[in-house]
This record gives sequence, structure tokens and C-alpha cells, in this order.
Amino acid sequence: MAVSAAAALDLAAINTLRALAIDAIENAGSGHPGLPLGAAPMAYVLWHRHLKFDPAQPDWYDRDRFVLSAGHGSMLLYGLLHLFGSLPREEIERFRQWGSRTPGHPERGVTPGVEATTGPLGQGAANSVGLAMAERFLAHRYNRPGHAIVDHRTYALVSDGDLMEGIASEAASLAGHLGLGRLTWLYDANDVSLDGPTSLAFTEDVGRRYEACGWHVQRVEDGNTDLPAIDAALAEARAEEARPSLIVVRTTIGYGSPGKAGTAASHGAPLGAAEAVRTKAELGWEHERPFHVPNEVRAHCRSAGARGARARAEWEARLARWAAAHPALDAERRLAAGGTLPRGWDEELPAFAAGAKLATREAGGKVLNALAERLPWILGGDADLSGSTKTAIAGASDFDGRTGQGRNVHFGVREHAMGAIANGLAYHGGVRPYTATFFVFADYMRPAIRLAAMNHLPVVFVFTHDSIAVGEDGPTHQPIEHLASLRAMPGLLVLRPADATETVEAWKVALAERARPTALVLSRQGLPVLDRGTLGSAAGVRRGAYVLADPPGEAPAVVLIATGAEVHLALAARALLAARGVAARVVSMPSWELFAAQDAPYRESVLPPALSARVAVEAGTTFGWERWAGERGVVLGLDRFGASAPAAVLLRELGFTAERVAEAALALAGR
Amino acid sequence: MAVSAAAALDLAAINTLRALAIDAIENAGSGHPGLPLGAAPMAYVLWHRHLKFDPAQPDWYDRDRFVLSAGHGSMLLYGLLHLFGSLPREEIERFRQWGSRTPGHPERGVTPGVEATTGPLGQGAANSVGLAMAERFLAHRYNRPGHAIVDHRTYALVSDGDLMEGIASEAASLAGHLGLGRLTWLYDANDVSLDGPTSLAFTEDVGRRYEACGWHVQRVEDGNTDLPAIDAALAEARAEEARPSLIVVRTTIGYGSPGKAGTAASHGAPLGAAEAVRTKAELGWEHERPFHVPNEVRAHCRSAGARGARARAEWEARLARWAAAHPALDAERRLAAGGTLPRGWDEELPAFAAGAKLATREAGGKVLNALAERLPWILGGDADLSGSTKTAIAGASDFDGRTGQGRNVHFGVREHAMGAIANGLAYHGGVRPYTATFFVFADYMRPAIRLAAMNHLPVVFVFTHDSIAVGEDGPTHQPIEHLASLRAMPGLLVLRPADATETVEAWKVALAERARPTALVLSRQGLPVLDRGTLGSAAGVRRGAYVLADPPGEAPAVVLIATGAEVHLALAARALLAARGVAARVVSMPSWELFAAQDAPYRESVLPPALSARVAVEAGTTFGWERWAGERGVVLGLDRFGASAPAAVLLRELGFTAERVAEAALALAGR
Repeated sequence: MAVSAAAALDLAAINTLRALAIDAIENAGSGHPGLPLGAAPMAYVLWHRHLKFDPAQPDWYDRDRFVLSAGHGSMLLYGLLHLFGSLPREEIERFRQWGSRTPGHPERGVTPGVEATTGPLGQGAANSVGLAMAERFLAHRYNRPGHAIVDHRTYALVSDGDLMEGIASEAASLAGHLGLGRLTWLYDANDVSLDGPTSLAFTEDVGRRYEACGWHVQRVEDGNTDLPAIDAALAEARAEEARPSLIVVRTTIGYGSPGKAGTAASHGAPLGAAEAVRTKAELGWEHERPFHVPNEVRAHCRSAGARGARARAEWEARLARWAAAHPALDAERRLAAGGTLPRGWDEELPAFAAGAKLATREAGGKVLNALAERLPWILGGDADLSGSTKTAIAGASDFDGRTGQGRNVHFGVREHAMGAIANGLAYHGGVRPYTATFFVFADYMRPAIRLAAMNHLPVVFVFTHDSIAVGEDGPTHQPIEHLASLRAMPGLLVLRPADATETVEAWKVALAERARPTALVLSRQGLPVLDRGTLGSAAGVRRGAYVLADPPGEAPAVVLIATGAEVHLALAARALLAARGVAARVVSMPSWELFAAQDAPYRESVLPPALSARVAVEAGTTFGWERWAGERGVVLGLDRFGASAPAAVLLRELGFTAERVAEAALALAGR
Repeated sequence: MAVSAAAALDLAAINTLRALAIDAIENAGSGHPGLPLGAAPMAYVLWHRHLKFDPAQPDWYDRDRFVLSAGHGSMLLYGLLHLFGSLPREEIERFRQWGSRTPGHPERGVTPGVEATTGPLGQGAANSVGLAMAERFLAHRYNRPGHAIVDHRTYALVSDGDLMEGIASEAASLAGHLGLGRLTWLYDANDVSLDGPTSLAFTEDVGRRYEACGWHVQRVEDGNTDLPAIDAALAEARAEEARPSLIVVRTTIGYGSPGKAGTAASHGAPLGAAEAVRTKAELGWEHERPFHVPNEVRAHCRSAGARGARARAEWEARLARWAAAHPALDAERRLAAGGTLPRGWDEELPAFAAGAKLATREAGGKVLNALAERLPWILGGDADLSGSTKTAIAGASDFDGRTGQGRNVHFGVREHAMGAIANGLAYHGGVRPYTATFFVFADYMRPAIRLAAMNHLPVVFVFTHDSIAVGEDGPTHQPIEHLASLRAMPGLLVLRPADATETVEAWKVALAERARPTALVLSRQGLPVLDRGTLGSAAGVRRGAYVLADPPGEAPAVVLIATGAEVHLALAARALLAARGVAARVVSMPSWELFAAQDAPYRESVLPPALSARVAVEAGTTFGWERWAGERGVVLGLDRFGASAPAAVLLRELGFTAERVAEAALALAGR
């Protein structure tokens, strides 16, 4: 059969992607050629015939999203961006080098056109669920009859490794439940992972599993050469609007490599110079120059970009008509898309009367509700604990993945996917995501929190039940090391407010962050609302730490530093100390990161270097507290796991009493 | 139809379990009655007719294992232990109180008969996979024709919440792959989780999903009353030896509660006094006294225990015959079961010649292999990275879940389940488990590591690729905060050796730990083997930190403290300082925990209080280092994420050079 000119061009484009990957990886001396060689056909068909994008504006609002969840195959993505977009050849040549736009794994923000930072397996797959949810949410909020200004799809390319990860299973189960019909995963089923054939560890029937999870599953038996089958499956996936689609594409890892195709040897290391030559010969690639892109291929791929440019022009016209008809909505859309807060957004937040007693989780729920009313693009939910975290938005319905209606996302008991889906919402833009669960389960979400921090995503992670004061549920449910382990993470803001008023300020700080995630750590137990008439203003929250109480008319002899619920302990200890004639300052320190970022004069005004008699108290590990307590200071914490007992009993038995704080201070003061 | 006497007794026993749960939870004022009320029938049938246990010896070697993965339903387990075992009534009365044996969630070690600490959902399910693997492994190693001394089954009771968790999906996929025919999960399918009906978030077809994962799936439509159906399904599960079994048992949460059955209201809070009375009436429970166990129920349940006692007596006789025939095997079995190491176990470990250069992961692999030869009960594996972690046991085959043959477990890209399965192996006893993956993926395993620490499980968690020296793979693969976040966890030993010789010592320390997990943190990059002829002995590893080098014949003016690869940086800086006339001590500090546990004289001999000019260097976050550097000290670390570039470039660009260390020391020394 004669190969048509179009088919020859397709093959040339696919081989260009393959050759670029081979060359860049050889040049860098490291990288993963196996996936680009095998998955180039499906990626090419998607980008050439289906994906809606405008290379001139990679961040176009209504573009389709493409996530390479198998981030180790980054050269496939960079090759696509080079062929179809704007990534220059020099960057391909600098693959994996210091300062390049082509890092080893794709990084959002580093490379235009990269939608999500991937590499830790399963994360990108879960991100794509968030991207697809955001599209539905915004479509519901902004589209009006005759004005479809939000109308795009989300694609992810996933690997065997992705689908082995629990987070991908969680995300898939939720996507099926929500009926995210505009989400499609291309599964590069090459039956090989780093250690060898997947028969070593992964023999489930993936397609059947996804069907059981409510997905529309198709199979392409020859993903190496059968482009029409890939094309048809993608078309059918687009036609299916009620269920997410999985396309199981059988491929050969390292396709074309005579010595390594179909084996793990092609997975994670360069082919080697000789094998690279043999592979190109096998593929029929006749160009000697590395990084070569034939002119006809470039022109052929440009046509897909031109299709996208036309689509964007049509969209711009649609948007203009819509904006004229709905100016208020358009203003909102612009604000939300830009991550900007409207004037006066924080003016009508709840205030709490001194002396009232409520948990900071309760206060947090009230603040969130007030914010959600003002900022209709806040979207979030919880991992089956909204009754406890208090984070449901009252009056809003449950989020519906088909229509995009509703604002309360029921993530189910799927903390890890919840975190990564929130990241996906943030990657999409136009929505402001939050999540909620118990603080101890931050551990389940940790890889996703790390990616939020690395990618400057302004997700608000709400964590309640923040210490041993959880009580009877016992050590499995009592955070000990969690504050330290989150404070240790670069790029994350941790806030643990002491009362309802500080909680208001903490939420304000969190929302004002445009490029940093926040962990908002709240109490289960009721806490008195502090009397700001006699104590320092909670406005100090934004500086991380502030003087809450000072001795009247005399210099303090000791300083008591505390966070969250333990601030009340410090205040009580201060009274005990006053009765013993020792003047104590109380510092509330809701955020280490914010305090560390203040200038030295402010920091020294709160913690004067000369005032070395310091007692720090926090119902968690002492790890790291030397930073603030200093060498002479004493840290009252808990370097063991908790226990099951009523909270008051636990706090007493484990030493969280005003008397113990006062005793430590007395000892320091030489009394 | 007349109810038979036996059926009446069964019902009375089930209602006893229900009433005990109601009473204990009312008495405690907190707890989860919904699961015990609904799942009591299946649990009762399992314990009464199938489970092999001897109440007189809850830790009998060949007992069946039962894990309540849905740990919030702890009162069901305590009720079972009370009815069938030896848990006294006083403990039921002290449910959730300080010092009781009945904490809010089951805790291994606190309550005889509790096999695993559960509560964080999904963990127990994954533990059960490890328990079942251990049984097969030991059966293969010890059973001989005519001598089946290892011959038991593993059961877990799992909830909707468990099965939503990714870790359970990972564990189930691996269990199906391995064909763990002696593993059975009873799935309490009550369609209600804490936030309401599971229709909010969980609508997948669980049975079909498990079939796709290679499980034998059965369904019991009326789990509230159809005991014969439960019994038959359990019998069929026992007959199926080639696949793990899932029994989907439809139940009503809070069964019997007129006001709350079938709703989330019965899930996580006491029924309330009035509803408790109504529920008992509805159940036909006529006993007024709380915590009542009718005499006929006690006698009826004792018969199950008697069956177990007979089985144990038969087993003891079998064991005696086997031991007589295979005394060496029996000696090994006893050692392994007791967690003891044989005399001379550490005598033939590899030694490394000074000046050779190899990564500590390479050295670690050689040590592990030497240990594995000596200790045939070491069993472990990796998450699809054995080629990189170097942790495969040479000459051993892949672990086979049907026969129990082989020692290399291919966990697949399932880090979280890997951790929890290793915990399950340790819970079982008789095997010594290890796991391996990249250090950055410790985050994926964190909830499992925490439970290992809480439960004093001597799992060795090997983590390689321990810093930005990972290089080109970039920030997603470069640990920064991981050392700090693991050091912050109570009960975990963290070891980061500096060279091959320290790696030998680190493995020795790890294996000698009988009741503590170890994180063994190893380098990707090659590191010179230090010359112990001129430097301090690596035996210092067991003290956590030691003087590696001191100035000859003079007191040091500065001390350089480092861990892992950065020790070499410190040594190089020391040479630079010597050339500038500044005498420096170098301290290698592979383990903070071990060093902190030394007495003050030793600690002060390594870090003299007067020697406050200290430079600490570690290619990770500075968080927490004030503890050792002190107030005058300088910490050279990395409080940002890494980047993609060759390792040498990265280390230089991010400041890990001997020159920078020397400069910091010079500044401290006033030079």
C-alpha cells in the first residue's frame, strides 16, 4: 500500500519528536528516552489534531490543558513545545542544564506551555482532575446562553508507574464519581517500568478497573503505528461528555531501538551513542545533524497552531460580546484569573467578642463562609470530615462534575488526591482552592503540599484537630511532629492562630498570598476569645509573632513564647508569675515564616537578644524551637506520641499546665 | 419459622457485642458506635466459626491474624476480645481513658490480641497484606512434608473509608498480583461515611474493581442478619488458595438504632442515653446492667476459644516433631521470632579500602547482601527502583505470594503500601523487613513510617539519592526538608553515613535495633572511603556523632559538623583552614537521635560547650540545626528547593563548596 503524503508527514513529525528526545538525552548524558520513543505517536496525534492551543499565547484562558503526568518523559513534552509551540532549539540543547527552561522533569513556571510540575508519579494525573473540575466550575459560573467562554478539555498522558500510585487511583475514583466527561487520560501501556517488565508487580486489568470506577475505557492495540485508531479514540473521548475517558494505548517502550526497545534498558538512561545511531537508522531518520527539524514537519505542525490561533481569535470575539453583555461577570473573571482580591474583600469578616469560647476550627469556618460569600471563586472541600473541620460553605450545593454547579467538593477519604486536585485547581487559575482534613493526615498529603510549595500555588490547606487536645482518638490521630515537618518545608506558610480573632487575621494572610500555599492549623477544642482591649492587637499575626502582653510599667524578666492553644497557657502562667513577682512578656507566634521574614529591629523588639530567659511552649515536638528559645531558653513540648484519654487529662498528664510553664520561667529567672 | 437454639445464641452473642459497644461509648462520651452495630454479625461469624486463635495465648505463633482496619470501630474489637478472649470487663469500662488497654483506636502492644495499630484509614488493610506475605514466606522456609508448622490465614475488616484510600488500592493491587490466597477482607459496605452517604463521593463498583485486580470477590446481600451467607462466603474464601478474597457484606451502619441507623449520625458520636435505650429495645436486648454478658453467650463463645486451644495443642505437638527433625531450622525460627540476631551476625561484613570511591547506596547494597546471607529471614524490596537503590538480594528470586518462595519483593510504584506492608511483615514477626526507594519519596510513605515509629517496629527504610546531588532529575527528586522532617518524628532513628565504612556501621546499628524503625539515608553520588588510619573510627556511628579529625597537637578553634556526603566537604575545608593557620575539628554526625541519647560527658567531648565557633553543613534545610550549631554557630544548608543540573554544578551554584565552609569558619574564628 502506498503511504499517503499526509501519513508520511505524520511519521516524519513523530520521528522528529523521537530524534529530538534521543539527541537531547545523549547530549545531557541523562534522561528517559523510553517514553518519548513509545508515546510520541499518541502525543503527536493529540497535539496535531485535537488539542486546542495557541503557540503565540501558551497561557490563553480557554486553552485545552495537557499534563505529562509521566514527567520523566519530559523530552517528549519539550519536543512537542518545540515543534508546535515556541520553545527554541537552544533550550532543547540545554536539556537538564543549570538555568535552562528544560529541566529534567517538567516544571510549571519554568517553561511556557508546561501546565503542571510532574515527576513524582501520580501527581500529574491527579492535577488533571483538578484542571477538569475548574473548567466545569468556571463554565457553570461564566457561560451564558450563546456565550461559551469556558469550553475546553483536559488531557493527561499517564504511565504504568502513574497508575500504580494510590493517588492516581484516588483521583480516578473521584473523577469517575464526578463524571468529568472533559477529562481524557492517554495511558502509555508499555508494560515496562524501571525495574523491568510490569509483570513483576502490576498485572491487574487496568481497563476493567477504570470501568468499575465509572470511566469510559477504550483500547488502542497498536499505539506504535496505528494513528487512525488513536485519532478515533480521541474523537470518541471528546464525544463522551458524561464520563472521563481512559484510552489504553499499547506501545513499545524505547520504540525503534534495536537493542533496547521493549526493555527497561531504554527507560531511564541515554541509549548511548552507538545505539542512538542504530535507532535512528531503524526509524528511517536520515538527518545527521542533531536536533534537526525538517522544514516540512515544521510547516505541518504549524497548521495545528494556526488552528488554535483561529480558535483563540473566535474566542476573543465571543469574550468581547459576553463581556459587553455581562460586564460585572467579566470584571469578576478578570480578578479571579489574575489572582487579585476585590477592593474591600476583607471588610465584612466576623468579629468575636472577648470572653466567648470557641474552637479556632469553628472560627475558621465562619471566616471561610464570609470570604466565600465575597469571593465566589473560592472552591474547595474536605476529605469526609466537613462536620469536624467546619469548612463547608453554607448555602452552597455539592460540587457537580458534570454541570460545574456547587462549591462544596466531597473529596472522600482521599487526602492525597485532594491535595493534588487542589493544586490542579490552582494551576488552572480562576478559582481559589482550599482543602480540609485533620492535621495528622497532613502526612497523607505531603507530596502534594510539597508541589504546591515548589510551584507557588496559593492553595489554603486547612488542618483542624491540631494537637494532643484531640483527646480520646489517641496517638494515631494526634499530631506531634507535624508543625515542625511543615515548617521545615521551603515555600510553605504555616499559621497556627491562638484564638478566633487571630484566626480571622490568619485567613486574611492566607488569602492575600498570591504565590504561596498556606497551612492553616486550627484547634479542635474551644479557646477563649482574647480581650484585645488589654492585649496586643491580632494585627500582629501578619508579622508572624507579636507581643501579646507585657508587664505593666516594668521590663520583662522572662518571655513566654507560644502558638495556638498554648498561648492561653502562657497567659495563665504569666498571671502565676506575676503573683510570684516575676514580670513576664507573652509572645504569640502564629507563624515562624512570617516572623523570620521581618527585619531585625522588629524581631528584636519582640524577642530582645538580652532577654535570654525564654520559655517556648507548644503541644508538639520541641524540634527546631531552639531557633526562638535560644541557648538559655527552655522548650516545653512533646517528643513522644500522645495517648487516648480526654483532652484535659492528656494535657495535664503530658505537662501542659500553666504551673509547669511558670515553674520553668521561675527557674530561668533564678527564683 | 422457629428460631433454632443455636441461631438464638448467635443472635445473643452478636447483640452482646452491640450492647458492649453502645455501653462503652456512652460511658466514654465519645466513640464510633455505627460500625460495631453493623459489622458485629460478620465479625462474630468469623471469630466464632473460622478464626484460629487461643485466648490463653494471644501471641501464638501460628494463629490467624485479624486486623480491624477500620480502627474507629475499636469497640467491636474490644468486644470480641472480651467475649472470646481475655480482655477483662474493667478495660471495657475504661474505654478511651488514660492508661487503659482500650484506647480510642486499637494499638498494638497496648491490648493483647490487637495485631496492628489502626485508625488512619487504609493502613490496616495494607498491613494485612504484609501479614499474609509473612505467612507464605515462613511457610516456605520452615514447612517440610508432613510438618506444616506455619499454616494460618489473615483477615481484615475494612470500611468504605479504607477502600477510598490510595494506600488500600495499592495494597490490593499488589495482593492480587501476588495471589495471596490466604488473605481475606471483610468489607463492611454500609454506604455511609462520616460526612453522610457514600453516594457523595464514592460510587465506584468496588467488587468489580477488585476483580480487575485479581481478587476473588463474593457478595453478601444481607450482612445484618444472614449469618449462613457470611459463613458460606468465609468458607469459600478459605477454599480459594490462589487469589485473595474480598467479601462485600452489605450492612446497615448503626443497625438497630431507630433514630440513627443507616445515617452518618451513628458514625462517630455516642448514640445518646435515650437513643441507646431505644436501640437496645429494638435489638431485643433486655438486660439493664451495662456491659452485661449473658452466661450462655460467654459459654457459647468459649467453645470457639476451646477449638483454638485444641488447634494450638496439636500445633505444639507438630512443632515438637518438626523441631526434633529439623533442629537447626527450629533454632533459626526461634531467633527470628524473638527478633534476636545470631552470634557473629556482624562478623563477615564487607570492608572497604581507603581511597576507593563508591556511593553509600552501593556500599549499602553490599552490606545488605552480606547480612541477608547470614540472616535468611530478611525480606524486603523496593518500589520499582532496585537498580538505583541497589537493594536487591543477589541470588535470591523474586518473592512469590503463592508459594512464599523468593526474597526480593517487587512492590511496584506503590511507596505508601510498601511502607505499610513492611509494617505488616514486622507485626507478623519472624521476618525482618526492609524497603527501599528514593529519599524524596519518603513523603509518600510518611503515614506508614509514623506507624512504624509509634509501634516500635524494627523496619529498615532504605532511602537513596539523598540530596540535591541527585542532579539532573531536578527539584521534584531532590530532598531538602526530608532529613528534618524525619528527625522531627518521635521514635524513628535516622542515619546518614558519610562513606562506605560508616554505612557498614549504620546497617549494623539498624539491624541491632529490636524495637525502633530506622531510616537509612544514602547517597547517589560516589564518595571516597575515608582513611580510618588517620581519622576517627567509624565505630563512632553508634554514638551518633564522633570526632573524625582533630588538629594535631593543638586545641581546635572551630568545629565543623557535617553528615553524609558533606563530611567530605568539611574535611576539605579543614585542609583549607589549616593552610590559613586555623585549627579545625571535624565531627561526623550520622544520627542526631543516637547522639542526643549519649550522656553529657560524651556529648561535650565531641562538642565542647566552650567551642562555640561551629559551622554545621548539610545539603538540606537548616531547620533544627541550631540544636548543634548553637547561637554563635553558622549553619550552611539549603532553605529552598533544588534545580535540574549536573550534580557538581548544582553543589557549586548552591554553595556547597569547601571554600564557603572554610570562609564561614574563618569568619567565626575572627580571621
